[in-house]
Formats: sequence, C-alpha cells, structure tokens
Amino acid sequence: MLLIRRFYCSSQRISHIAKSNKRGDSLGIRGWIKNIRRLKNNTFLDIDDGSSSSRFQVVVPRNPETQNLTPGSVISAVGEIQVAPNGNFELHADRVESLAEGHLQDGYPFTPKQKHAPEYVREHLHLRSRVDYVAAQMRIRHKAQKAIHDYMDELDFVQINTPLMTTNDCEGAGEVFRVQPDSEELLKQMARPNVPAEQSYFDSKVFLSVSGQLHLEAMTYGLGNTYCLAPAFRAENSKSPLHLAEFYMFEAELAHLDELEKLAKFIEQMLKSITNRVLETSSEDLHFCQRNANASSDLPWLTVPWTIMSYDDALHVLQANKESLKTPISLDEGFTKDQELFLVSHCGTPVFVVDWPTQQKPFYMKITRNNPDRVHALDLLMPAVGELCGGSLRESDAATLSSHPQFPKDLSWYVDLRKYGGIPTGGFGMGFERYLQLVTGVKNIRDVIPFPRYPHSCKM
Amino acid sequence: MLLIRRFYCSSQRISHIAKSNKRGDSLGIRGWIKNIRRLKNNTFLDIDDGSSSSRFQVVVPRNPETQNLTPGSVISAVGEIQVAPNGNFELHADRVESLAEGHLQDGYPFTPKQKHAPEYVREHLHLRSRVDYVAAQMRIRHKAQKAIHDYMDELDFVQINTPLMTTNDCEGAGEVFRVQPDSEELLKQMARPNVPAEQSYFDSKVFLSVSGQLHLEAMTYGLGNTYCLAPAFRAENSKSPLHLAEFYMFEAELAHLDELEKLAKFIEQMLKSITNRVLETSSEDLHFCQRNANASSDLPWLTVPWTIMSYDDALHVLQANKESLKTPISLDEGFTKDQELFLVSHCGTPVFVVDWPTQQKPFYMKITRNNPDRVHALDLLMPAVGELCGGSLRESDAATLSSHPQFPKDLSWYVDLRKYGGIPTGGFGMGFERYLQLVTGVKNIRDVIPFPRYPHSCKM
Repeated sequence: MLLIRRFYCSSQRISHIAKSNKRGDSLGIRGWIKNIRRLKNNTFLDIDDGSSSSRFQVVVPRNPETQNLTPGSVISAVGEIQVAPNGNFELHADRVESLAEGHLQDGYPFTPKQKHAPEYVREHLHLRSRVDYVAAQMRIRHKAQKAIHDYMDELDFVQINTPLMTTNDCEGAGEVFRVQPDSEELLKQMARPNVPAEQSYFDSKVFLSVSGQLHLEAMTYGLGNTYCLAPAFRAENSKSPLHLAEFYMFEAELAHLDELEKLAKFIEQMLKSITNRVLETSSEDLHFCQRNANASSDLPWLTVPWTIMSYDDALHVLQANKESLKTPISLDEGFTKDQELFLVSHCGTPVFVVDWPTQQKPFYMKITRNNPDRVHALDLLMPAVGELCGGSLRESDAATLSSHPQFPKDLSWYVDLRKYGGIPTGGFGMGFERYLQLVTGVKNIRDVIPFPRYPHSCKM
Repeated sequence: MLLIRRFYCSSQRISHIAKSNKRGDSLGIRGWIKNIRRLKNNTFLDIDDGSSSSRFQVVVPRNPETQNLTPGSVISAVGEIQVAPNGNFELHADRVESLAEGHLQDGYPFTPKQKHAPEYVREHLHLRSRVDYVAAQMRIRHKAQKAIHDYMDELDFVQINTPLMTTNDCEGAGEVFRVQPDSEELLKQMARPNVPAEQSYFDSKVFLSVSGQLHLEAMTYGLGNTYCLAPAFRAENSKSPLHLAEFYMFEAELAHLDELEKLAKFIEQMLKSITNRVLETSSEDLHFCQRNANASSDLPWLTVPWTIMSYDDALHVLQANKESLKTPISLDEGFTKDQELFLVSHCGTPVFVVDWPTQQKPFYMKITRNNPDRVHALDLLMPAVGELCGGSLRESDAATLSSHPQFPKDLSWYVDLRKYGGIPTGGFGMGFERYLQLVTGVKNIRDVIPFPRYPHSCKM
C-alpha cells in the first residue's frame, strides 16, 4: 500500500505527518496557502492539503521568491520536520515552489481568516469544500459511511443496491418525484399501444425511491440479513433544517427477527459502535466541527443504556407534562419534535418508543396478536435531532397483510415473499444526515451533505 | 463482535461452519430446505441460509415429524457437527423444528434442482434472490464494493456522495432522465413568476446524474483525492447485455495528477488489488458463478503487466488486421466492441489506449500542449467486456476550457474551480457492473445487479 501511495503521490499528506514522521525527517508536502506571516528572517505559511482540519506550518527563509506568495496559492515545499515552540511539527523548507496562483482578489468569495455564515458559504457551493469546516464534515461523512460498511460486513450483512427508479411508492405518502426520459423523440420512438406517451420508456409510471425497505425484504428472503446506505428522495415543500429533497438512508433488514426488543438492542449497539469508530478515526475533525457549531463535544448517550418505553407510557409522560410542551398532543399523528426532545430529556437517555397505534403506522408493520390496535414498531428518539430511526417487525402473515386497508394495489409481489418459506423479519431506517448532525452538532442538514437539494435549490 | 452476533442470531451461519467449527461442536442452524433425500433410517436435508453457495447437509433420524418436511420450508436444526463421507462437515441433528411451510406447489416459479434460464429467472425478480447463482452474485457484489471502499480509504481518498439530481448534463449526450414532483398540487403551490410550471420545485430543469465527475472535481479542489461509487442513469433505448438505464459508476479524481501514465498505473494496481481481495473473500461464490456462466475461473490479467498503446498505434494495428474484424473502422467514433476485443487479444493483456483525438472526447479533457488534435485521455480495454474504464487528465487552464466549442453554457462554476489555486487533476470512471461481469463471466448485465432497469422494464 505504501508503494502505490508513494507512486502516485510523491508528497506526504499533512494528516499523516503527526502519525508517521519524526523530527529530522526529510519530506515534501503540497497544498494551498491559507495564511502567510512574514517576520524579519522567515516567512511562515499555514498550509492546507485537504487531509486535516489543522493547518500545517511551513517555515521558509525570506527571499524574493517567497515574497510573491499569496494566500490561496498552491505550493510544494521540501524540507525537514522540526518541532515548533507550541509542540507541533512544522516543516523547515529549503525549497518552496509555487504551483498555481491564488488570484483570490479576482472574485473569490471567502476572505482568508474570516468566519462566514453557513448560509453565505452555501451560496458558493462549488467552492465550499475549501472552507475548513465543510472539508472536515466531508471527511467525517466518509469515515461514518466506512464505519457502517465495516460494521455490517463484520456481521455478515449483505449490502444491496436497492433501485432508485421504482414503480412503488413505499410509504404511500405521495410525496414522490416522477422520472421520465427528457427526450420527446425517444419517448415517441419507444411508444407502445395502451401506454401513455410519457411512460413509454418503462411502460409504467416511475418514481424516485423513498425507501429501500421493500426491496431489501425481497433480498432478505434469499440472502438473510441485508442492508443499504442509499439515496432517498422526498418531494416536500419543507424549509426545515432537518429535511432535504435528496438524502441518504441507512436501512437494514434482519432475518429471523421475532422480537422488537432485539431490534432496539441491535440499533443501540450499532449506533454506539459506529460512533466509537468515527471517534477513533476522526476525533480531530469531529471536535473541529463541534466547536465550529458551538456544540458540546460530549456524547453522553455513548456510555449509558438506552430507555425502551411503550407509546402508551410515553403519551402519559407527555400528558402529565403538558405545561412544559410547546406543541399540543395529538392522538392521531405521533409526537412533534418538541415532544420527542422532551421525552429524551425526561428519560436522560435516548428513548425507543415501542408498540405504536396501528393507525399511525404503515401497512407493512406487524400487528400485535393480542391487540390489533398496536403494531410492533419503534421510533428511536435522540438528543438534538429527535427521531433518528424508525423500525418494526414486518407483518409476516400473507392474509393479514393483503387485507390491510392501506395495502397498496400492485404490491402482490410483496405478499408473495411470505408465501414460500416465509420467515419473521424486521428492520429499521436511519436518516444518515441526521446521524451526522447528531454527532457533529451541525444545525442545518444542508451543511452535512456535499450538494444539498431543497425547495428552489438544485445548484450544479 | 461475536457477542452482538450471538445476541441477535442464536444460530451459526453456514458460511462460518467450515471456518470456525470442528467435529463434535454442538450448534444450531436455520435455513430453507433445498432438497430432501429419505433413506431407510435417516432423512438428509440440504439447507441454504443465504450465506453460501454450498448446500449444508443436515442428517436427522427418520420420524413422523421429518416425514412432513418439504422443499422450500424453513427449519431450525440443533445437533452435532460430524464429517460426512465426502469430507465436508454435516450436522447430525437431534432436533429439527419447522418454522414455515414451503408451499412451493402453490405457484413458486423455480423447480427445486432444476436449472432455469436467466431470462426466466429474471421474470420473477422478487423471488430471484432464492436462486443460488443470483444470491452468490449479490454476495460478490457486496464484497467487491467493500474491497473498493477499503482500498480507497487506505489510500486516503474521501468518498463523496455526488448528487443524483443535478442541473448538469455532464456528457452532453442528451440521454438523460428528467425529474419533477409527481404532485401537480405541489407544483402549483410552489409556482414562481418566470419559472415554467413543471420546474417550480427547483426553479430549473433537473436531471438524474450521468456521472459524478464534475462534482468530484469541485470537492477535490478542497479535499484532495476523492471518489464515488454511485448510481448513474442513461435514458437509452438499448437492449445490449452491457447496458442498463440505472447502473453504478466507480469514479475517482486525483489531485496533483500531471501524467496520464500515472493514472493508467493507478487503475491497473487498483483493479488487481480489489480483484485479489474479492478472490480472498469470495472464492467459493466466484467459482460457483463462473461455472454457472460456463466461464473460465482463470483471470490471467491479474499477473501480467498491462499494455499502454497510443490511439494512433491502436488504429494501425486495427487497419493492418481489417480482415479479422467484424466491423468497419471509423475515424470519428472510437472503436467498436469487436475492435476493442481484437486489441486485447492482439496484445495478450488488457490495453490502455491513450492520447485520443480531441474531437472524439468531451470538453473537459486536457489538450496536449504540442498537438491540439490529441487529448490526454485513456480507455481501458479488458477481455470479454471491452471498455471497462475511461479516464483523462482534466483541462486545467480556465481560458482553454471556456473556449472549447462543446463547453456547456451554465457551467461557469466548473471554470471557476481552476481560477483560485488551480491544481492539475485527473481521474477515471468504471462501470461497476461491467467489472462484475468481467470477474464472474456473467453474460448479461441484468444478472449482476439486484433490480435491473432497462427499456420497458422497471419491476418492483
């Protein structure tokens, strides 16, 4: 691995220097100048190469060449590792080469050393990765995905690429995007009798996926445990800092799952484990983002057992504390974010609310055999973000499923799954961006995804 | 890890038995009965739990209970590991419990022990994961993705979730899908002056992504090396066994890349490395799929150095061998698959064709400074599948880029990237399904993706 790394990159990356180098090592680095200080004998350059949220200092003797260096320019520097007075490594360079000019004065929107509001930074989406907290978020996002893939692979889950174009509307909420070829010519060419013109590519109306769950289920009946970490889409007119039109869902389906408590336990252990992995790989970036968002770096939910509470009990808690709530309690629509956060704060831990009213939940959830008004469903409520995961046992009885009043037409394949060697299954879905908000403390979901899509905005 | 595995699954998975167990171990398994043989004293059950392409044999004394077991049913069995006459482990069960009936006679489309044609299997997409070679493909697909993520992470590449809804049409080919909310109501609600009604959600025409490259580039200018392994979409009316409307692209963008040969070397080492990893994790499934596809299990390209050949030299080779080609040579349109395979066979190794005619390639490729008729582009040609990767150095000069005759309007942000501290970059894209076809020998691309989408077909 070292050989190939060296082969295509003759420089050391800044994130590796503290880990792999020692005082006196000779090495080269490459990166953007974030800041320049010129003292009498030496010029001090703060260098960023995209690998770390710490700036790395390069010290060069003052000479006519370094005189022309400007912030934003790209340099390569070769020299020797020394220890700065603050204890950090720095590079005493004997050679600095300018690779490209910064030209920041020609319209670059971010002033060096100045902190810009996230709304302003978002306006310049194509240049946003050059802003330190955005870059840190992207590295954390990468490592969090890596942690999920590693964890699920260790447990023998098979990652399934659930399709993004689908003829289902899983949640039945109708908030879907429709897809069709842009070319009228192509649609005409592919026309078939009895198929509406705009549907001629697939012979049916096609939507962007709102969830991979039903497709995962089909795979689980052959492969056992499966998961996906895939984009999902909602056509909602929401300006909320917790919603996007295109976001990522981490969903898993567990074979032979017969108790909701086992699912809750699985989710708790999974979230603690992947978060500990992210803390191991990305602590510097994580603390940088937390500080930047004025959020605590403390994640107390990592070390306590989480609460499991029935819907009925949760409702009682809320009803007994009406005066502390900002929103009215509804018996038809689940809890508001305010109420979710109250329950978390009341319990002092994350809360799994289990055994929900049947009429509040989708058709595929398993009905409690001794009480048809309740389904084996759970919502996981977390500090700051409220609902992070939703999950359930799935209705395994073909007849009960097909006679559900909300059972969608054209979903006979879903019932079919249960007919031949049916097994109890269950699973959950987690909004991946909300998870990132939870651990980094970032307020707006638009700042934890590289290219946010929301009402009236689809830049690039 | 073992603890959590045990917690939610009290049974051992079949794929682990050969690795982790020994003769005399007591354990339980759960799975579907694939086949039953009844001898005088014992019943022999071939069990599949989705974890392995080998069937696992359970031996149970004949008794009235086992008399009722049928293929397709789900059982749990508890007993002791013994060694069968063929040397494999088997379970001598003292307890077998039926968990669900098979009911295969009630319309199950796949007859046990019979080999069905892929076209027939595909017709029953929702039950397809129960077919052994499909399940094996899905496990290989998972492990190949895992290998890519591991490899790129080890080399410090940052995975970027490039957006799937975009206002760009990167390749400019026009074969795009258009996206809009399905709800007329919502579109009306969101209407703005001067925006066409069907575009009111995003205030512009929005497409499904055909490539993540341009977005990766934007990120690379802040983060250094980046990659994505993401869905891409093409609205083509193609019935080819190498094309899908929704497929996966593995794309990477390398910072500070100044020579095309370095990119070729990177691709070669990456493909050899991830394939060796897949051979390590999935050799049984791989050989099962290769046998099933009547393909060789030999991948000779793993151990030889690959050829780099200029477009001009490749053209000469083809022109000198016209009589061996099935298709005419075009000077405007690149090589046909027949010609690609001829070049691979002629060289006896995979071939990087480099330095392509400028007019055959997209606007973003770097023009050779001493010959404007050639760009620093490469195509990687492999046995069986032909073109597997396409890549290039990117044009780093803002003025050259914007004056390209095919430069798309509204892409000024892409030029902007080069203006402030521009660096040389380059990268490649690889069709992930074609890679799977290459290693497994599977002829039709529809059989290496869980839910294939192609003209007139978007099931489930």
